[in-house]
Amino acid sequence: MPAAVKNKIAGFMNSLIELARDDPRRVIHSLKVGIALSFVSVFYYYQPLYDDFGVSAMWAVMTVVVVSEFSVGATLGKGLNRGMATLLAGALGIGAHHVANQFGHAGEPFVIGFFVFMLAAVTTFVRFIPGVKARYDYGLLIFILTFSFVSVSGYRDDEILDVAQKRVSTIMIGASVCVIVSIALFPVWAGEDLHYLIALNLEKLGNFLEGFGDEYFQDQESKTEDLASTLQDYRSILNSKNTEESLANFARWEPCHGRFQFRHPWKLYLQIGTLARQCAYRIEALNRYLTAEIQTPVSVRAKIKEPGTKMSRECGRALKEMSTAIKAMCQPCASDVHIEASKAAAKGLNSLLKSGIWEGIDLLQVTPVATVAS
Amino acid sequence: MPAAVKNKIAGFMNSLIELARDDPRRVIHSLKVGIALSFVSVFYYYQPLYDDFGVSAMWAVMTVVVVSEFSVGATLGKGLNRGMATLLAGALGIGAHHVANQFGHAGEPFVIGFFVFMLAAVTTFVRFIPGVKARYDYGLLIFILTFSFVSVSGYRDDEILDVAQKRVSTIMIGASVCVIVSIALFPVWAGEDLHYLIALNLEKLGNFLEGFGDEYFQDQESKTEDLASTLQDYRSILNSKNTEESLANFARWEPCHGRFQFRHPWKLYLQIGTLARQCAYRIEALNRYLTAEIQTPVSVRAKIKEPGTKMSRECGRALKEMSTAIKAMCQPCASDVHIEASKAAAKGLNSLLKSGIWEGIDLLQVTPVATVAS
Repeated sequence: MPAAVKNKIAGFMNSLIELARDDPRRVIHSLKVGIALSFVSVFYYYQPLYDDFGVSAMWAVMTVVVVSEFSVGATLGKGLNRGMATLLAGALGIGAHHVANQFGHAGEPFVIGFFVFMLAAVTTFVRFIPGVKARYDYGLLIFILTFSFVSVSGYRDDEILDVAQKRVSTIMIGASVCVIVSIALFPVWAGEDLHYLIALNLEKLGNFLEGFGDEYFQDQESKTEDLASTLQDYRSILNSKNTEESLANFARWEPCHGRFQFRHPWKLYLQIGTLARQCAYRIEALNRYLTAEIQTPVSVRAKIKEPGTKMSRECGRALKEMSTAIKAMCQPCASDVHIEASKAAAKGLNSLLKSGIWEGIDLLQVTPVATVAS
Repeated sequence: MPAAVKNKIAGFMNSLIELARDDPRRVIHSLKVGIALSFVSVFYYYQPLYDDFGVSAMWAVMTVVVVSEFSVGATLGKGLNRGMATLLAGALGIGAHHVANQFGHAGEPFVIGFFVFMLAAVTTFVRFIPGVKARYDYGLLIFILTFSFVSVSGYRDDEILDVAQKRVSTIMIGASVCVIVSIALFPVWAGEDLHYLIALNLEKLGNFLEGFGDEYFQDQESKTEDLASTLQDYRSILNSKNTEESLANFARWEPCHGRFQFRHPWKLYLQIGTLARQCAYRIEALNRYLTAEIQTPVSVRAKIKEPGTKMSRECGRALKEMSTAIKAMCQPCASDVHIEASKAAAKGLNSLLKSGIWEGIDLLQVTPVATVAS
């Protein structure tokens, strides 16, 4: 084997190991899919079950492959979407078949064709509605699929009711197996992920602010070119919107678990996420100051060093306090102290500024923090 | 019907009309799905075709429903993924069935079960690799699906080769119909969308910068609370990352069309997109100044008004010039002039600042602009 190919394979293997180490739940998820799939294929092998379901057992296999998702919420959402859509579209399809039957064998294709065309066009269009897309996109896809399936095959198959009924029950079985495996074996809750993601984001912001003051007011000489990497962690927040939104969508499908009650206010997490992002945008601008070409003269810095550092540090501590409070799910009591201290420092800085020095951006930082706290 | 229900339905209808008006291609896409679906159902109705394919014709219907996507790139990507994965997994499945056959009828379920478990677990894990997920996620799903399907049903069905062959050909037909309809009838090119999105984003940034100077250096009295909404357009750029990335992914599947050659450098669009986003973050911070509590005294503003306004306006013009150049696909020649003018203004401002006034953030704005230009 040439060395280039060997290197490529080694690189690929390394990236796999990296993925597994990064989040071991990925390995568990892969095994879970394998288990669920092996389990439903028993329907095919075990004679009494095969006598009941026949070739329809295939639909259970298919459902398991398609419905298995990483988090419980996503699996449940897809499973429910698939189940509901199949039931509804199956019933409608049988109805359409009966209506079309009135037009005779020659007329049926045209009537069914018209139905399928209308339903597919309208449903495809409805899928563009953002709110519908977020929660029911998969269901609508299956809706079109099953309706076409049932109504069109009604033309050739007289035992349409029997086929439809078997298909619905095997799909239900497949979806249930998925959901049970997903919840019973090392469940991955999207809600929990969202919870910790938001808390971690606040912590990252806090880390930056805590370190920023020291970094900024450092002597010019001792300044290192590359900042401590923990300070740069906040960058991942800038583009976190989509992740947060899909997690919140999945979380809404999940039943109550652990400390998360049914109807947990997932939307509030998104609001905190948005505030954190706005904060991150401003931090991105602050961060620029560290590497900017024009630097404020040291003499001026010295004047505002004390309140500036304090304000930044207290801000950061308040954020980290809030992050801990979110993790523990309690009122952030200690953070108020830090916010007060930060506000006092900001006031001091403000009066300094009024006396002739402009460097007001730090103050703006306080506003979102106070908002997050409320 | 109670008034509340009536209102809800009216609201729903309005949102549909809104969607259609927003982008009429959505209506066309919905009709295209309907047409493709009606077309493949002919395989079921037309006797000679039905004689050839039998119940397998259903797979064409299924493929059309699942593969039809909004843009040509997405449809082509899904179609190719599905076709390739079906072929490969079908062949592997038949191979697995033959291997398992050696173990006798009693041993076969265990051998096949082992194969299915291993393949499903490994493939599911591979789907976590980000680069693979972006382009081949759907193909891997179909790979697991088809392999389980073919190998498991081999246990009950002796005509496995015949079934597999029919299935592959109907899936190919379904995918081809989708791709042809997608390209032939009012195609929606993801590449073109990406192209205009990037140009539009630069234009939005330009609009803001052009207006910012005037807005900021306005007299305190005449300042309006709500800014012109065109200035706020840039906000959509802050979260544009995912849209841009998926468009670029789709675009890479597309054949050459119009002014876009094969192997068009789609990655460069993403780079411009990232720069535009960084610029937007900074603009978000600039925007804060307009509504900040602490305002720089008018006397100081007056001093920097002339170069500040000019710098901001020239920056904005340069960006808009580049946006036009991207749209027309030519070298942005006029933008260099604006950048030079902006740099000169920045220099003037810089020397003013060195004489004792700090308000340096505007200058930072020039850096990304210059980078975008190169």
